[in-house]
Amino acid sequence: MKLLEEKIIKEGRIYPGQVLKVGAFLNHQIDVPFMNKVAEEFYNLFKDEPITKILTIETSGIGIACLTANIFNVPVLYAKKSKGINIGDDVYTVQVTSYTHKNVSNVIIEKQFLGPDDVVLILDDFLANGCALEGLLDLVKMAGARAVGCGIVIEKAFQDGGTRLREKGIRIESLARIKSMDVVEGIVFID
Amino acid sequence: MKLLEEKIIKEGRIYPGQVLKVGAFLNHQIDVPFMNKVAEEFYNLFKDEPITKILTIETSGIGIACLTANIFNVPVLYAKKSKGINIGDDVYTVQVTSYTHKNVSNVIIEKQFLGPDDVVLILDDFLANGCALEGLLDLVKMAGARAVGCGIVIEKAFQDGGTRLREKGIRIESLARIKSMDVVEGIVFID
Repeated sequence: MKLLEEKIIKEGRIYPGQVLKVGAFLNHQIDVPFMNKVAEEFYNLFKDEPITKILTIETSGIGIACLTANIFNVPVLYAKKSKGINIGDDVYTVQVTSYTHKNVSNVIIEKQFLGPDDVVLILDDFLANGCALEGLLDLVKMAGARAVGCGIVIEKAFQDGGTRLREKGIRIESLARIKSMDVVEGIVFID
Repeated sequence: MKLLEEKIIKEGRIYPGQVLKVGAFLNHQIDVPFMNKVAEEFYNLFKDEPITKILTIETSGIGIACLTANIFNVPVLYAKKSKGINIGDDVYTVQVTSYTHKNVSNVIIEKQFLGPDDVVLILDDFLANGCALEGLLDLVKMAGARAVGCGIVIEKAFQDGGTRLREKGIRIESLARIKSMDVVEGIVFID
């Protein structure tokens, strides 16, 4: 998505360790008018699927999930990363490693909100090592639901998550795929 | 908002300790088609204000903030609860106590995303003791921005946050105000 690549180059900032900060429009501030165009792109990619629910993981997937769900006219379900007192015991749980936060979290969904009748589109802001997506795909499987694929705003294609998931036959639609990034050279996208 | 009160009675569940679970439509699953009606209500209440940005706090405010921002056609800024490696040092920080999670968090926004030209609508899912809203109001003040008021989906009016904030002259618009709730007696709303 050309507009998205331009946005990343204009507003993203690169830090050592291949950290890309896109807090200007994606995961701190959310540029809602712009992200609506991203949501429309996901809608166009997946509109032929009989999607009943959009699944994401807290926190930074929630905004794009809601804007996309708004076009599909379906609910969002966001998996939660730890167990607060507002969560009951009747949950599906997977463990997910966070690259950003350097920790392992229990990620849960309540069983009552996902079942065999659900056709699920998984959305997230980033795909890097793929651990979050694999966790969400496992949750969909545990629930007996069907995942039609994953929509990703920014894929760090120099990490192996996207390759590994596509090799498993998962449909991964990343709207911007970063081939390489570097403080000096900047960002190169895969065409 | 009558529709919202009906939704809370139908889909909310009350637990001992005056815990209300609304994971069916608000803070685990998000019933986006329904929450859009809630967003329209916020729009109608605040549409005469020259709002430039909607401010909320992760996690459960993000969905309603994005849907409302979509109608106002403005960005969302969500305050973050801890300091991951994707956040720089140039931030405003307040401390907020979470009733749900029984802890104190540093809550931050990056300085670059809020400034004296901003007119801010604060949105959140719940208002109980008011600590989160006070933190967000403090962040707006630190940034030199102006807050026009706070939109709340569900106010636990039997806790003192709403009263305390209104006494300070803050405009608080809660779409459902719970007077009392109890496992046996159910929920009573303030008219």
